[in-house]
Amino acid sequence: MLLQRRGYRPENAGNEKEWKRGRNDPPRAAAGGCGFVQANLLVLPGKEAVHFEAFARANAAPVPLLETVRNGFRTSVLADGANLLTELPSYDIFENGRRVARVPAIDHCYRDDMVFFLIGCSFSFENRMVEEGIPLRHRKEKLNVAMYDTTLPLTPVDIFRGNMVVSMRPIRCDLVAKACVITSHFPETHGMPVHVGCPELIGIRDLAHPDYGDAVEIRADELPVFWACGVTPQNVLRRIGIPFAITHTPGYMFVSDRPDSDYRVP
Amino acid sequence: MLLQRRGYRPENAGNEKEWKRGRNDPPRAAAGGCGFVQANLLVLPGKEAVHFEAFARANAAPVPLLETVRNGFRTSVLADGANLLTELPSYDIFENGRRVARVPAIDHCYRDDMVFFLIGCSFSFENRMVEEGIPLRHRKEKLNVAMYDTTLPLTPVDIFRGNMVVSMRPIRCDLVAKACVITSHFPETHGMPVHVGCPELIGIRDLAHPDYGDAVEIRADELPVFWACGVTPQNVLRRIGIPFAITHTPGYMFVSDRPDSDYRVP
Repeated sequence: MLLQRRGYRPENAGNEKEWKRGRNDPPRAAAGGCGFVQANLLVLPGKEAVHFEAFARANAAPVPLLETVRNGFRTSVLADGANLLTELPSYDIFENGRRVARVPAIDHCYRDDMVFFLIGCSFSFENRMVEEGIPLRHRKEKLNVAMYDTTLPLTPVDIFRGNMVVSMRPIRCDLVAKACVITSHFPETHGMPVHVGCPELIGIRDLAHPDYGDAVEIRADELPVFWACGVTPQNVLRRIGIPFAITHTPGYMFVSDRPDSDYRVP
Repeated sequence: MLLQRRGYRPENAGNEKEWKRGRNDPPRAAAGGCGFVQANLLVLPGKEAVHFEAFARANAAPVPLLETVRNGFRTSVLADGANLLTELPSYDIFENGRRVARVPAIDHCYRDDMVFFLIGCSFSFENRMVEEGIPLRHRKEKLNVAMYDTTLPLTPVDIFRGNMVVSMRPIRCDLVAKACVITSHFPETHGMPVHVGCPELIGIRDLAHPDYGDAVEIRADELPVFWACGVTPQNVLRRIGIPFAITHTPGYMFVSDRPDSDYRVP
């Protein structure tokens, strides 16, 4: 059953006000995010899809597969029968690694060898962090999280290779351990940090100029803490010049019927 | 039943060579430590003991009570019937906050209002860290862990008050999160770090000069990570000039019959 809330699509999935305005969320969701697992979408033809799936398994921290849909286009794990050709409000079509179109549906270009990958995102653990008293500046300031290219190599599979993209959140020194522990309980949505402090060690030269998203202040009592980021696969596709792919438009992720808590392991 | 290994007392409980020489430990113990939970001992007369127990409960990270023995001097939780008056190889007697004697047994000064506190120590989680591939320099170099006075206030109870003592271990930036998660599984032996990076924020001026234990190098790809330390209560007793107390002599802790894994929560 698709819930009514499926009809609403925020301009910016990280924008609390948008969520609050559009939905009758329970109070806990008001802290930020919708309380339901959101997922990045990637669509590949069968030939590349086989290798991409192996690539995702080999790089589960940045590319956590929540559901893989083949032989059709309807979800069964994240929601019961959502139509991935029309369910998302905006799709980006890539040819040879470059975006060639932004469209409101992809039913016109469906081919039956297409495989749909739904990839975990960090909203789930962010909600939990906020609930547990860890301030997240980018959410308070209604910004996108800061993301950076790194020199951390991915495990290559066939044509799929490259470096990890990380998201960065400034965390108070006395809360760093707690942030690590909380996010470790969400292994399917990037899990615990891959790096704490010392951005230069992973190839980040200037925290004030993220490669994606928005810069946030890092205060004297905070450390930059880095998590594997779901932008990684999109970045890989661009860099290897993938012949054909479809993704969700950034900010228009797939909203599942599964509460965040479903993906929290004890 | 007291195991035969009770007969052996290392000069330095953190010294791997001593453990290896003296005991027929299973292979995993050879990585460092004995594989059995060790505990700090503190003995107080009944009057102070009541308040100290409340103080410990209010400050469980630095003062984790593993067992409290009253109406006698034999353990029941950490070992079946160990005699705390003679079981440890060396005891320190304090009067008015100052050590006045170091003795091999305390049966001669037993009073029936005495309460024996057995307090968790970090050896349990250190073993696990090493097993999980987190190098601990002080153990490799056969040094004591570095410990520091801080400005982190304890929750006061009656006469018991003061600041936390922390232990510091340099951890590689890519392993900090893992170290936090592993130690969070040992809440009764200090648990997750209380602070990561930025020693000056907790009143530590110079990492090269610890207040207790030995200094260790911190390399460019490492952060200083701080855990609540079992030296905290001893330090409190000294500072408040406790009228009478007995502790184990540093390095001669109580070795229990409980394997480290008993104190690991899932």
